[in-house]
Amino acid sequence: MTAVLKLGGSLLTEKDTPETVDEAALADAVAAIADAVDSRGDARGVTSDDAGSDGERPTGDDRLVLVHGGGSFGHHHAAAWGVSTTAGTHEAEAVRDVHRAMTELDDRVVDALLDQGIPAVPVRPLSVGARDADGDLSLPLDATRTLLTEGFVPVLHGDGVAHAGEGVTVVSGDELVVRLARELDADRVGACSTVPGVLDDAGDVIDRIDDFDAVADLLGGSDATDVSGGMAGKVRALLDLPASAYVFGPEGLRAFLEGGDPGTRIG
Amino acid sequence: MTAVLKLGGSLLTEKDTPETVDEAALADAVAAIADAVDSRGDARGVTSDDAGSDGERPTGDDRLVLVHGGGSFGHHHAAAWGVSTTAGTHEAEAVRDVHRAMTELDDRVVDALLDQGIPAVPVRPLSVGARDADGDLSLPLDATRTLLTEGFVPVLHGDGVAHAGEGVTVVSGDELVVRLARELDADRVGACSTVPGVLDDAGDVIDRIDDFDAVADLLGGSDATDVSGGMAGKVRALLDLPASAYVFGPEGLRAFLEGGDPGTRIG
Repeated sequence: MTAVLKLGGSLLTEKDTPETVDEAALADAVAAIADAVDSRGDARGVTSDDAGSDGERPTGDDRLVLVHGGGSFGHHHAAAWGVSTTAGTHEAEAVRDVHRAMTELDDRVVDALLDQGIPAVPVRPLSVGARDADGDLSLPLDATRTLLTEGFVPVLHGDGVAHAGEGVTVVSGDELVVRLARELDADRVGACSTVPGVLDDAGDVIDRIDDFDAVADLLGGSDATDVSGGMAGKVRALLDLPASAYVFGPEGLRAFLEGGDPGTRIG
Repeated sequence: MTAVLKLGGSLLTEKDTPETVDEAALADAVAAIADAVDSRGDARGVTSDDAGSDGERPTGDDRLVLVHGGGSFGHHHAAAWGVSTTAGTHEAEAVRDVHRAMTELDDRVVDALLDQGIPAVPVRPLSVGARDADGDLSLPLDATRTLLTEGFVPVLHGDGVAHAGEGVTVVSGDELVVRLARELDADRVGACSTVPGVLDDAGDVIDRIDDFDAVADLLGGSDATDVSGGMAGKVRALLDLPASAYVFGPEGLRAFLEGGDPGTRIG
């Protein structure tokens, strides 16, 4: 079972204070992940202290890839330099600012995971991927795949990415989740943010979406050019996946990791 | 013209003091690189301040990729955890220790380059590559290639790398240089360390080596299993490249970048 889980930047950071982690939210999310990873490890008879130096690696039946967004770390640097998923920069200082801020957030996330015994290893999209002149992203996953089969939990994040003709543009956590889910044949995809799911007009969580047209008006974005990461684009991309996808808030994280149906099921 | 230049870890760091940069050596190396990059930019009528936001990117006729070793940053962590190019670890803390130390050194190198107007962008091998069970390295260069054509100077470094069956092993700067030279069809390859070239019995620099057997005894390592990064293995790997390769000390750096023949020419 391969699961791809995104922790939203809005969940992990204090939105209104630049480069500040929401420590309580990070700790809660990591605790939920640790419980799930532990129970999987126990079921395989693998202890977290020494899961492999004896050569008996788990076969990797249960694999987890994490992705997180930028929240108050990456976005303000990108905005200050005028960089988006389509508008690039040739200024190496801009690339540094965005990448360093995201690396700093990611180091905090990885440290929190390691502290709870989760074998997290960072994978930085700026080092891996490239967009062609049409903006299409290549993202060779050699490192991610081998880290997974060796029992690690790869952690990717929104980042800069080389872009033919544009210099460096942004790749969002949402784009990475969809790409990873497809290329890794993920069984389950989760997007955990601060909202409990996709909401209807009355502010209630929609249980399930399996037809974009049925909710397009509600989501306010049937425009196919929506690349802003808004809910409409996210739902459309998740609907296109063969995997079961879920959009949920922090209270749904344990249920997602245990195989349940939190928040809104998409597809 | 594509050049791949390695700056040895022994050159950039204080060997006997853990995680200490040799500031003078780094500054000298960066100054030499900045002069070479500036003169190339001037020849194309490209200024370093704004070389591309108007859409008139250089065509990338002159491309430079940098690689650096670990010196006193990476090696002692790798040694402490018992990790080498062939002996791996499944401990995520070990991966973190090696990778963070190398990232810290690389950030210092990138900052020094940026301060001199060189558009350096880090590319972290741990995020990119993977070894199969035989130790063969895959290293997809999508990001590196596009960064190059967009006018950036990619900076790679010795790092951990996922390794099937071993967890994570080490990839050395020397291994990266040879791989990059081959896959990027480099015209020139330089290895700058603290010694002025490959030395003969009398301690004098050998001008040129074009036959390994002729120097095997001298280098003390005709053993084909030498993967330690020793001089014998380095010379053998550089001889196999179609590019002209040079091994030189810091005093040869400007000559290498200007198209000269410093130190020992190999091949």
